[in-house]
Amino acid sequence: MSFQKINEDDIKFFQLALKEKYVLMDEENIARCSGDQTEDLKFPPEVVLQPGSTDEVSAVMKYCNEHMIPVTPRGAGTGLSGGALPVWGGVALDMRRFNKILLVDKRNFQVTTEPGVITQELQEHLRAEGLFYPPDPASKGSCFIGGNVSENSGGPRAVKYGVVKDYVLNLEIVLPSGDIMWTGANVLKNATGYNLTQLLVGSEGTLGVITKVVLRLIPAVKYDLLLLVPFRSAVQACEAVNAIFMAGYTPSALEFMERDALEWSMRYTQSTGVNLPADIAAHLLIEVDGNHMDELYRDADAISQIVQQYDIDEILFADSYEQKQMLWVLRRKVGEAVKSNSIYKEEDTVVPRAELPALLKTIKELGREFGFHSVCYGHAGDGNLHVNIVKGEMSDDDWAHRLPQGIRRLFTAVVALGGTISGEHGIGWVQKEYMDIAFSGLQLQIMKQLKHTFDPKGILNPGKIFMS
Amino acid sequence: MSFQKINEDDIKFFQLALKEKYVLMDEENIARCSGDQTEDLKFPPEVVLQPGSTDEVSAVMKYCNEHMIPVTPRGAGTGLSGGALPVWGGVALDMRRFNKILLVDKRNFQVTTEPGVITQELQEHLRAEGLFYPPDPASKGSCFIGGNVSENSGGPRAVKYGVVKDYVLNLEIVLPSGDIMWTGANVLKNATGYNLTQLLVGSEGTLGVITKVVLRLIPAVKYDLLLLVPFRSAVQACEAVNAIFMAGYTPSALEFMERDALEWSMRYTQSTGVNLPADIAAHLLIEVDGNHMDELYRDADAISQIVQQYDIDEILFADSYEQKQMLWVLRRKVGEAVKSNSIYKEEDTVVPRAELPALLKTIKELGREFGFHSVCYGHAGDGNLHVNIVKGEMSDDDWAHRLPQGIRRLFTAVVALGGTISGEHGIGWVQKEYMDIAFSGLQLQIMKQLKHTFDPKGILNPGKIFMS
Repeated sequence: MSFQKINEDDIKFFQLALKEKYVLMDEENIARCSGDQTEDLKFPPEVVLQPGSTDEVSAVMKYCNEHMIPVTPRGAGTGLSGGALPVWGGVALDMRRFNKILLVDKRNFQVTTEPGVITQELQEHLRAEGLFYPPDPASKGSCFIGGNVSENSGGPRAVKYGVVKDYVLNLEIVLPSGDIMWTGANVLKNATGYNLTQLLVGSEGTLGVITKVVLRLIPAVKYDLLLLVPFRSAVQACEAVNAIFMAGYTPSALEFMERDALEWSMRYTQSTGVNLPADIAAHLLIEVDGNHMDELYRDADAISQIVQQYDIDEILFADSYEQKQMLWVLRRKVGEAVKSNSIYKEEDTVVPRAELPALLKTIKELGREFGFHSVCYGHAGDGNLHVNIVKGEMSDDDWAHRLPQGIRRLFTAVVALGGTISGEHGIGWVQKEYMDIAFSGLQLQIMKQLKHTFDPKGILNPGKIFMS
Repeated sequence: MSFQKINEDDIKFFQLALKEKYVLMDEENIARCSGDQTEDLKFPPEVVLQPGSTDEVSAVMKYCNEHMIPVTPRGAGTGLSGGALPVWGGVALDMRRFNKILLVDKRNFQVTTEPGVITQELQEHLRAEGLFYPPDPASKGSCFIGGNVSENSGGPRAVKYGVVKDYVLNLEIVLPSGDIMWTGANVLKNATGYNLTQLLVGSEGTLGVITKVVLRLIPAVKYDLLLLVPFRSAVQACEAVNAIFMAGYTPSALEFMERDALEWSMRYTQSTGVNLPADIAAHLLIEVDGNHMDELYRDADAISQIVQQYDIDEILFADSYEQKQMLWVLRRKVGEAVKSNSIYKEEDTVVPRAELPALLKTIKELGREFGFHSVCYGHAGDGNLHVNIVKGEMSDDDWAHRLPQGIRRLFTAVVALGGTISGEHGIGWVQKEYMDIAFSGLQLQIMKQLKHTFDPKGILNPGKIFMS
């Protein structure tokens, strides 16, 4: 790459374009924008820019494109594949000032928002209007909706309601050239030209900078119930997942947690809310939702009957707000708990749902072969299993050189099961070396040509998704 | 374009690649593949090829790409925007031999099918296994699933269940180069590279030839109820659509028919099943579905209460198979009925749902200004209104020269309402002259570059979507 280092003239331009106070080079901001939630990776940008309008983003992009300065867009920095790491230095384009919900169009069940709004705040704002935006990644309390769009995030409710891509109707983006465009229209059905919107969703900030997001919404759902089911066999827990769907039920969440995941999360959050007998190997956390409590009790009862066919302990049935909150906090904090416990790597495997038991067995076999311990949990209803590989006693040398071979074997097995290497975290910086397992040379070449169409000079979020 | 005419050597190659009997130049096949259901447009291909395998498609594409022979893929020829018209002659690639359902993966709620399977047959095959593939375009009894994918078709049930794009997980395609590739993976969540699958869906056969389709499925739904609600004001009928959603109900179909639409369809099908008093201006056809009859009656009752607030006549409540069939046939035959009645043009407008009343008013005003009569009907729940402009008494000259100005005004109004120019029929041949209303030069340029990435020589379905 023939990227240019940022010089004094560049800074002067940025200060003119954005006002001085939004051009940051202090230690704290540089440090903050050096990393995200991916392992302990740090790549400092040369400058942090905080544009406040689409026109300002456009001015920055145009300038950087002309001057071959790499630009890495950044949301809240909660990513798990290193998508926001400024691996080539240059500009960290910090989108936090894009924090306004622009229009709640209640008549059309749509919202137009800026990308820097925190997902949970957006959800709560909409819920107060009787509207529901379902995708809720574990980091919903801090992540930005723009980052969710960029990574095509999921979360527990995807099993019933779909992922981010199923809600994005239209995006305003700024191209590397500085040109501003919308990707589609604010309509529920669209057969007008190529689907640029869906090409942008999940493109990890490599094709354009998202400056506005139009989401479709659904009517708010009134009630939910939550069940925590303890299994004596983790493989049986995976099997039960499929049995629930085969019986015709679609829970609004169907989460799997290995024993360690729950135990570590309980320790991390100092929770005593769940009794964890020694013989329990895994849990399913099952939510049903709807507008009529009698129907929820009926469905919860039917699901209880189904899981009773397996070797389970007593089901914890949560219908109070406090109990449900307690269980969801435990589930959402697993990632942080693992991180606090050890150096780790998180793999975001996804397979056709019925292959989950096979995937889990393979993971454990590979762990024995390569000497790693893994804590598995995730969105079992979607076949999306997060594999946290903890360093524990592994030597630095094995961690650096032998483990990648194990991960390669894991992803190869995932693809052989009909799956792929990321369900909702993206490829970013840390998974790109495995893309050849999921895709042929031809597929990668087509994708790179698409990148080239949007970003011919390669200045936007360089070093991501592709090896070269 | 520097396309080559097909010569004897080309024919010899095709005969060798496909067997002689699948290389057709007889009058009947040439005539059949000259048109689709779009107006009366006819563009004869030079030869009709009927490949029987992906490898055969690959051989044909490679050859045609090398020899600059245009190739137009063809499903069942039910398209309404001329996507299958061989406007440059060359090869009509008739996919009817791709008629096998390859794998029903009941455990994973997926099906892998060839593209030449009739949509309704696929649906019935799956329903017998307890599985449901919802998208059901009006032509479902004859259209191919591959054509549905190419156009991103909808149909009445899109309002609750989404359109084709919401069900396509993965596609096997043959590129113009002859290279074969899959676009994604058979998983419910995917954050691995760019979404090539969604780029192909709705690309109208211009980026690759679809040879296998992997669809996600949902559990079959047991029951449905149907209501036909007669309104004395068409605008009020549109308003009622929104009131139903605002009250928190999501019907499994919410169809609008102007009086003429229903009346013409009744005449065309010789049906006497519906009483049509003189003061009725429009109908809503409303379906609710679910697995518990008591809930359906409850929802149907609530919806009835909502529509009672408008000036309506007696609701026809259909719960027998025969009654429901009768009403659906009337709805599905509107298009054919209009076609049998007059030369016509069908516009496939789509707006944010709440803008339907405004759209309907605009259509009628433009009709008065430009002297055309229109029959409007469609998927009101999605804001997708089909506008059938009938020639009637209009002079040939006005039809050819004045009407396009009226259509231009109509589409301009649609875009001003936040909508776009095709909801489910595609752009194809007949709407491409209006693409500049929906898209800026920049957007069109990006789309053309995407086309170029997949089809650098421009031999695959040339003349579609773009003016040049």
